[in-house]
Amino acid sequence: MVMNRRIVLASRPSGPVELANFRLEEVPLLPPLADGQLLVRNRWLSLDPYMRGRMNEGRSYAPPQPLNETMIGGTAGEVIESRHPGFAVGDAVVGYLGWQEHGISDGRQLMKVDTSRIPLSAYLGPVGMPGVTAWVGLNRIIEPKAGETIVVSAAAGAVGSVVGQLAKLAGCRAIGIAGGEAKCRYVVDELGFDACIDYKSKDVGVGLKLAAPQGIDGCFENVGGAIFDAVLPKMNAFGRIALCGLIAGYNGEPIPIRNPTWFLISRLKLQGFIVSEHMDLWPRALAELAEHVASGRIKYRESIAYGLENAPAAFIGMLRGENVGKQLVKLD
Amino acid sequence: MVMNRRIVLASRPSGPVELANFRLEEVPLLPPLADGQLLVRNRWLSLDPYMRGRMNEGRSYAPPQPLNETMIGGTAGEVIESRHPGFAVGDAVVGYLGWQEHGISDGRQLMKVDTSRIPLSAYLGPVGMPGVTAWVGLNRIIEPKAGETIVVSAAAGAVGSVVGQLAKLAGCRAIGIAGGEAKCRYVVDELGFDACIDYKSKDVGVGLKLAAPQGIDGCFENVGGAIFDAVLPKMNAFGRIALCGLIAGYNGEPIPIRNPTWFLISRLKLQGFIVSEHMDLWPRALAELAEHVASGRIKYRESIAYGLENAPAAFIGMLRGENVGKQLVKLD
Repeated sequence: MVMNRRIVLASRPSGPVELANFRLEEVPLLPPLADGQLLVRNRWLSLDPYMRGRMNEGRSYAPPQPLNETMIGGTAGEVIESRHPGFAVGDAVVGYLGWQEHGISDGRQLMKVDTSRIPLSAYLGPVGMPGVTAWVGLNRIIEPKAGETIVVSAAAGAVGSVVGQLAKLAGCRAIGIAGGEAKCRYVVDELGFDACIDYKSKDVGVGLKLAAPQGIDGCFENVGGAIFDAVLPKMNAFGRIALCGLIAGYNGEPIPIRNPTWFLISRLKLQGFIVSEHMDLWPRALAELAEHVASGRIKYRESIAYGLENAPAAFIGMLRGENVGKQLVKLD
Repeated sequence: MVMNRRIVLASRPSGPVELANFRLEEVPLLPPLADGQLLVRNRWLSLDPYMRGRMNEGRSYAPPQPLNETMIGGTAGEVIESRHPGFAVGDAVVGYLGWQEHGISDGRQLMKVDTSRIPLSAYLGPVGMPGVTAWVGLNRIIEPKAGETIVVSAAAGAVGSVVGQLAKLAGCRAIGIAGGEAKCRYVVDELGFDACIDYKSKDVGVGLKLAAPQGIDGCFENVGGAIFDAVLPKMNAFGRIALCGLIAGYNGEPIPIRNPTWFLISRLKLQGFIVSEHMDLWPRALAELAEHVASGRIKYRESIAYGLENAPAAFIGMLRGENVGKQLVKLD
């Protein structure tokens, strides 16, 4: 009998997520496959900030993660058994099978991927949900024009790193905001942003004044709080803000927007979005991202935790900003 | 020699506007008309919340009102002397001649109006800048669909009253928020909104829950602060917010948006706008508004102060919400 190790949500956090909010379980992988099903051995788990929101109760755009059930999440792995006509043993697949070593799928929300030019794990990063998130927010909300200045917070993260590189490819000036000198060096030296402001050691407002002397035309916001408050007054008239995340406030009380007058003074557009609601754009976005990654025009890094049991700690570290690039868990 | 009485900005307010911030002056109306100029006797001054912003120094979408110069503002009056080929003595005109009894114009930003079907003062209200503001915010940002629920704050004001009536004409449910029972009765009984919440005597959140059981699809925001904070959690997914004003914060420190997470959770669009930047829409908007007003489909009220010397007190009263409908000053 195949045994399966999985991590379930044991309790909801009140404040910062703790290890005790999770529980590792070993359970028999039952029932056996039915017709139309297939069994996947997960090789990579994707850890993403949106999961923090799902851990809460209360109204949101998606139902909360149920207690005592496998944590939701994106996965990449290979088919090890199949009674589904569209999938064969050995197929590399990306899906949403959650924090577990094996997953059973009926093929829905499961995508076969080509690992000949692009490594499997990249389908959870720049050629997956984070990359498409960057693509949709940038191209459909910010709509950058060559010569404009685009700012992105959490610039060293899985989404932010792609936002800035796509902005550069669109002929824009790309400015990152990230925490720590090492991340900022990575963003500028390796990813090719024009500048990066270390919010841990510098005043973001002063930094933006120097880095964006012509003001900011587009902002891809992942963080919120004091960082967003510093961006807002620097936005040019008719600036566009793609609101992707507010990670600064995920662990407690929401953090206000201090001076909403700027929306009026500068006639700004702010738009919240969720990438899974733009499925029509995924094929085009993924095709473009795959080309950019395969050709090296879009670079990326991964922060890898090893073993399912280390997923909770890696998740907590990611929420604290300890990762650079995409946070993954490698399962053997 | 024609003497002209005018009100100038004597000092910038620190906090609430005071009478001492203004000064009434009597000055000779010099020089005599040059070729291409005309002289207007103002009959009506328009008092509008945006003027509060202009009284401050500092960066905004328009330069500050200069000290010791005639207060800016919309006016309606008649031509009493003309050396301009497009205007004749007796023409009724609407323009931006400021807080004074006479104004010299070169014809730019001056519009001849037909007072046979619509009273002159209405061209400063529902068939003027406030009406077009309502039209643009509603039709170009909120884009209401029949059956949707639209909320507007300052619903008894010059702009808000038109927003709700246009929303009703578009087949929507219109809910107002206003201060005081009398205003709310006016909004419902006379203007035909479906409901109006008195923020002075009721909890706005509870009121919205009752008045908008299906949630809110569009919000036309004039006020900000606690009122907007109460609207935000009631917005439906993909709701649109036209940000027209934030009068709650005009007299002091800006008032934060308490929980921006709603923009993300409900994938909201917020857009600040200024009606003077949509000049292409004015002809169509004015034509529609004129039809609605002439036919009685759009109703309006005016709060009238008499005499130029009473303009400052009327302006201060308007900022406090003492007016119902359009705040005007009648000059004889």
